Amino acid sequence: MENLIQPKILKGFRDFLPDAEIQRSLLTEKLTNVFRSFGFVPIDTPVLEYTEILLRKSDGETEKQVFRFEDNGGRDVAMRFDLTVPFARFVAEHKDELYFPFKRYHIAKVWRGEKPQAGRYREFVQCDFDSVGSDSAASDFEILLMMKTALAAIGVTDVTIKISHRGIFNRFLAKLGLKEKSEDILRTVDKLAKIGEEETARLLTEIAGDSAKAGDILKYIKGSDSFESTLALMEEMAGGEADDTKRMREIYAFMCEEGIQDSYKLDPSITRGLDYYTGVVYETFLNELPGIGSVCSGGRYDNLAGLYMKDRVPGVGSSIGLDRLIAGLEQLGKLDAKGSFIDAEIFCLDQSLTGHYMGIAKQLRQNGISCEVFPDAKKMGQQYTFAEKKNIKFGILVKPEDAKAGVLTLKNLKNRETFENITVAEAVEKIKNA
Amino acid sequence: MENLIQPKILKGFRDFLPDAEIQRSLLTEKLTNVFRSFGFVPIDTPVLEYTEILLRKSDGETEKQVFRFEDNGGRDVAMRFDLTVPFARFVAEHKDELYFPFKRYHIAKVWRGEKPQAGRYREFVQCDFDSVGSDSAASDFEILLMMKTALAAIGVTDVTIKISHRGIFNRFLAKLGLKEKSEDILRTVDKLAKIGEEETARLLTEIAGDSAKAGDILKYIKGSDSFESTLALMEEMAGGEADDTKRMREIYAFMCEEGIQDSYKLDPSITRGLDYYTGVVYETFLNELPGIGSVCSGGRYDNLAGLYMKDRVPGVGSSIGLDRLIAGLEQLGKLDAKGSFIDAEIFCLDQSLTGHYMGIAKQLRQNGISCEVFPDAKKMGQQYTFAEKKNIKFGILVKPEDAKAGVLTLKNLKNRETFENITVAEAVEKIKNA
Repeated sequence: MENLIQPKILKGFRDFLPDAEIQRSLLTEKLTNVFRSFGFVPIDTPVLEYTEILLRKSDGETEKQVFRFEDNGGRDVAMRFDLTVPFARFVAEHKDELYFPFKRYHIAKVWRGEKPQAGRYREFVQCDFDSVGSDSAASDFEILLMMKTALAAIGVTDVTIKISHRGIFNRFLAKLGLKEKSEDILRTVDKLAKIGEEETARLLTEIAGDSAKAGDILKYIKGSDSFESTLALMEEMAGGEADDTKRMREIYAFMCEEGIQDSYKLDPSITRGLDYYTGVVYETFLNELPGIGSVCSGGRYDNLAGLYMKDRVPGVGSSIGLDRLIAGLEQLGKLDAKGSFIDAEIFCLDQSLTGHYMGIAKQLRQNGISCEVFPDAKKMGQQYTFAEKKNIKFGILVKPEDAKAGVLTLKNLKNRETFENITVAEAVEKIKNA
Repeated sequence: MENLIQPKILKGFRDFLPDAEIQRSLLTEKLTNVFRSFGFVPIDTPVLEYTEILLRKSDGETEKQVFRFEDNGGRDVAMRFDLTVPFARFVAEHKDELYFPFKRYHIAKVWRGEKPQAGRYREFVQCDFDSVGSDSAASDFEILLMMKTALAAIGVTDVTIKISHRGIFNRFLAKLGLKEKSEDILRTVDKLAKIGEEETARLLTEIAGDSAKAGDILKYIKGSDSFESTLALMEEMAGGEADDTKRMREIYAFMCEEGIQDSYKLDPSITRGLDYYTGVVYETFLNELPGIGSVCSGGRYDNLAGLYMKDRVPGVGSSIGLDRLIAGLEQLGKLDAKGSFIDAEIFCLDQSLTGHYMGIAKQLRQNGISCEVFPDAKKMGQQYTFAEKKNIKFGILVKPEDAKAGVLTLKNLKNRETFENITVAEAVEKIKNA
């Protein structure tokens, strides 16, 4: 006999058992429905791409994390680490086949060799939605509205969506004479929530070489009470009204018209670090668990596919980190423990009736009821346990004399309610109305 | 300015543009509904696994094709090349958390570095459904029924599902004294459709060292007219009745009870080559395009996870090669050219009405209608072309005076039927009833 191989998976990777995968499927389906309801269409791209395509613009951190290798044909290839870079390549490659504004969603796995920790995995699912080809406040607002709508659709309402505008911040830094140092400053401001105000101030003073300027930056990123007063402060500190502040007012006007302005907080400390954003930017935090980081982030960029083509394609988009979100909801005890796609279990009381059981199953399925036939005449206790583990609501029992009479017993396995001697049609009604 | 990188993808890999991805999504959703209706539950496993786990039992061909590399932690890893090996590992690793018969479906990408050709890609989607833990004719039949039902659900009815039984064939070879040569014989028989009867006879004579035995094998694999007469022939040549032929009769009885026996052809030349099957085996061919090979194959195995644990887990399963199937249907012109998830386009007649348009969109979505607001006041011709490219059925037009009066114009973009001065509620009705 061969030696057995220990069945195990790689660190940072996960199996999804049925309960977890049903949960993830239900969440994904709800998100998909929202994306579709806004006119977004799906695309797909390869998991493997030329490393040159994926990594050209990346920072060192990404490069260290990417799963990269030489394939059998000697090509330098890598597994995608996000859905944005492949999307940029996709838009450049297919621009003549697309229609703009091109609005796509893409729900798929990405891979990063990160240090595994709570809520962080080396293989995880991202849900991206982007609208490219329109530089309008309407598009900006649409993405913001979709973030709120999509999260609400999966029961996540206790969130704060923080928004800001990268262009206003850049203008402000230029006015301070710190344009050249903006990368370092962005990197530092991005860490505010993690390292605290004092440490941020110390680092900013070091970078700006001037504690007064550091103080200005702190004042700017702390903002004011309301959306309007914060915007006024940003505008003043950045040197007055411009297209960027006008854009923020337009977005705010859309929010007010829709009556959802309270769901968004203008927070000038949101910058999205070194990313390629140029306009509005946003991050979303679970109010009860802000420490896990943003669960839905994004912003506007003015040149999505600049690495691959000369045409400038502006766009705006957002990404839900589904696995991080699920980890957070689990931690908060806010996920339904068990879902089920199966309505009824037809128990096996008599093996010779299996064909009859299958006939009943067929009728149920024709009426839109999902059901299964237990294939072996195992002990009833075992069969009940099985149905319970699968979270199946109804049991159907048919004895030989029932089969002859064309009736069955329907049992609600949750509350033990039992209906004897009913027809399949009656069972259909009862299951549908349950 | 940086040099541009040519946007391109790897050979054998594909982008899915919206029309193709909508199509694939629709097919996948229909298959998923069938799997769920039979009580099958979803699972997921990592794309990357230890190479040792994936490749231990594989033949040289697979080893050459697999995408394998050393990760940053020095681990020998590989991308999954099918969904069966990961499922075997999964069952061994989680057997105490599962309930048996464990019936799972898994629709996911797999990777093989095959020579790209029509309908063959290096990245493709498989749809697997397996039932493990029950060695019953009911389970065998259930998988066969699901194959037919799943294919019918996606409009594929002109197929031949060929079935046979590996155990009967093995018994027959043993009776001929050719047990030791069964691997070579299986390999040869498996190529019958490709190389023809004459070449098969020549090869079999070479292997068996005896033209009479080769003739017997040919007689066996050619079978007879009907299911019953072919089974009788197989039984006789294998040495009489046994559990294996009894099992085939049970399966056939289920087919007859369900009235679907004509959908299956008992074809003793089906062996599934060197695979690990031990019982019933099957392959499915498009009647109009048999040359592309089987689009749905599988069978019964008596020991799924034997590499990883001592417990024997019998099972039966099947796999739909979705991408090969789609390629075949495309070749036959049998795929809907265009699907759409979007019901209505709200055109932008006046940029200042965008907020009003969004209000209408909100009401439509609340009524289950997917719609989008065109974000920019582009020329109407451009906006109509956009809606046409997205295959959107309804256009909604609102002029400033309409907005004031609370009405709109609804236009069926397919047949040009137009309804003027109607309310949103009336538009909802018309769109729903269309």
